[in-house]
Amino acid sequence: MFNIAPLNSLYASVIQQKIDLKTKPLGALGQLEECAKTLTLILSQSLNSEHAVDEFKPVINAPTLVVFAGDHGVASQGVSIAPSSVTSQMIANFAHGGAAINVFCRQLGWQLEVVDAGTLSEQHHISVHNQRLGHITESINTSMAMSPAQVEQGFKFAKQRVNAIKNTGCNTVAFGEMGIGNTTSAAALMAALLSLPAAQCVGKGTGVTDEVVAKKIAVVEQAVNLHQSHLNDPLMTLAALGGFEIAQITGAILAAAELGMVVVIDGFICSAAALVATRINAHARDYMIFAHASDEQGHKAMLAALDASPLLNLNLRLGEGSGAALALPLLQSSLAFYNEMASFADAHVEQVV
Amino acid sequence: MFNIAPLNSLYASVIQQKIDLKTKPLGALGQLEECAKTLTLILSQSLNSEHAVDEFKPVINAPTLVVFAGDHGVASQGVSIAPSSVTSQMIANFAHGGAAINVFCRQLGWQLEVVDAGTLSEQHHISVHNQRLGHITESINTSMAMSPAQVEQGFKFAKQRVNAIKNTGCNTVAFGEMGIGNTTSAAALMAALLSLPAAQCVGKGTGVTDEVVAKKIAVVEQAVNLHQSHLNDPLMTLAALGGFEIAQITGAILAAAELGMVVVIDGFICSAAALVATRINAHARDYMIFAHASDEQGHKAMLAALDASPLLNLNLRLGEGSGAALALPLLQSSLAFYNEMASFADAHVEQVV
Repeated sequence: MFNIAPLNSLYASVIQQKIDLKTKPLGALGQLEECAKTLTLILSQSLNSEHAVDEFKPVINAPTLVVFAGDHGVASQGVSIAPSSVTSQMIANFAHGGAAINVFCRQLGWQLEVVDAGTLSEQHHISVHNQRLGHITESINTSMAMSPAQVEQGFKFAKQRVNAIKNTGCNTVAFGEMGIGNTTSAAALMAALLSLPAAQCVGKGTGVTDEVVAKKIAVVEQAVNLHQSHLNDPLMTLAALGGFEIAQITGAILAAAELGMVVVIDGFICSAAALVATRINAHARDYMIFAHASDEQGHKAMLAALDASPLLNLNLRLGEGSGAALALPLLQSSLAFYNEMASFADAHVEQVV
Repeated sequence: MFNIAPLNSLYASVIQQKIDLKTKPLGALGQLEECAKTLTLILSQSLNSEHAVDEFKPVINAPTLVVFAGDHGVASQGVSIAPSSVTSQMIANFAHGGAAINVFCRQLGWQLEVVDAGTLSEQHHISVHNQRLGHITESINTSMAMSPAQVEQGFKFAKQRVNAIKNTGCNTVAFGEMGIGNTTSAAALMAALLSLPAAQCVGKGTGVTDEVVAKKIAVVEQAVNLHQSHLNDPLMTLAALGGFEIAQITGAILAAAELGMVVVIDGFICSAAALVATRINAHARDYMIFAHASDEQGHKAMLAALDASPLLNLNLRLGEGSGAALALPLLQSSLAFYNEMASFADAHVEQVV
């Protein structure tokens, strides 16, 4: 369904040399240098000569962040701090511009889109895209969360959304999520795909008690055991353990990678979607920039599995794509230094290393 | 010389409550919440009622970053990767807009000022403030780096500069540095003020070899031993082990705190100046926001001594105030959520915690 080209690194050394000749000690801009290299490599894929890459000034165009909201049957198992009704209430908050992600997108220049991927109460907000796969998933510890057909429909919706965004001139996307119960679903995906014990994958989400954490662990163990026969297939794993929003984020990541866009990955839940995406097509990883290390305890191991070193580490545990949103200025800083800093030769500064 | 008011926290609970009623789980914005609280507290000091604080919308006005450059006699001891001549070459690079700090300030909206605090070759750039305390300090392991009178003159220069900046309408300042040899000076200040072994304070600076690190450690040990009799007085410690730019940054931090401004602290060298500043007047700490944890190995212990949890951790080791510059969008994000996010009541979202 997704035809993703591996990143061509033929001219990576041209990019590295430009970075190394800037008026700074070698490597002194740390992670910004890695970020500049990855972004430039992704954004220069259509160029086909060393000279063209050398002259290229990469910029982030019309960055767009899409928040996907979905409800989870597993929330009825008492794994969350809030009832499922809050998911729909937060969609209304997004639609009215009052949530954290609205504030950060306005401040930082992201275009924001909101998708109802399937929530308890269908609402009609002019600014919310209807991509509903149902009202709420089945509880993962007693049933498949959704059918494979629902996952495929989710991928189709996501691909249409990303294509429309690409047509606005956007070259950089990020995805966020809202869904009561979705840290449990993400932890189950993590446990299944990384073959880790549930206790290493489950955390406090947005702030549950130790008692609730114990319940989450039991639910994840049950779910992984129940669906064992499906776990060799990533799409079936997603159907069994995922959620409507997680399925669409997975599809959106794959669609954006297929289009050669930069994909900024938010925290724990989006990383779970990223993990599923890489199992469906390993080349998707080439297009990812990891925005932040979440406060959720399982995120560290998930990031390690994805070989990712996120830019930010602010102890966030909000979701909505907030960590991805906050990382945009750092992406822009990395391209600003790449494009604008003087070289040793330009500035007549002695190059020592 | 500096009359710094301790921060009045009478209305801190009003600020905390505003944060806690935003539509997000309690504490879910992590360090941004701490940052919002500190910034709002500093910027609301002139308000004298609970109501006024509750209504207050804090904003960062005309943020200004000053890079102080100075040369260090200790550079002649072979502790640096580059010769002292590079300090002046970098001043020219700053003046022409080609350095990393120029790029980041342009991108992020900092006003940038450059100060020659005392460098080998006096230059005349229209955009560089002449606040020279000499050509180069004495080598700290054989002599006082400078005289107490030079430190006092440095404080006077710094205070004038900060006053002029305040008069532009600025309420937020950051300081950066350029000076070949200055990680050795900063490590010596750290060793002296925190009574730590030199080996725990010395790092690779901008990238020296292990052999050079060993030499730096020996130089710092010599310097701390030589000046032992002065180390009970922070101003004398600064004169003995500091540098022209470190002295002026120390004075600038104190002057900005005296004026009630937000002071954004950059990496290892600026943290050393911040440490000296808190020893001169402990209330200065109240006005500091720590921008980034540097890649320099001693920075972690220095930050712990200052009870600081920086916003960024990007493995930077460049100086110039680059880490402070990069943190500005996060400061602005913290105030954006504080000012603009809906409360649970506004948005009709159920408040669970």
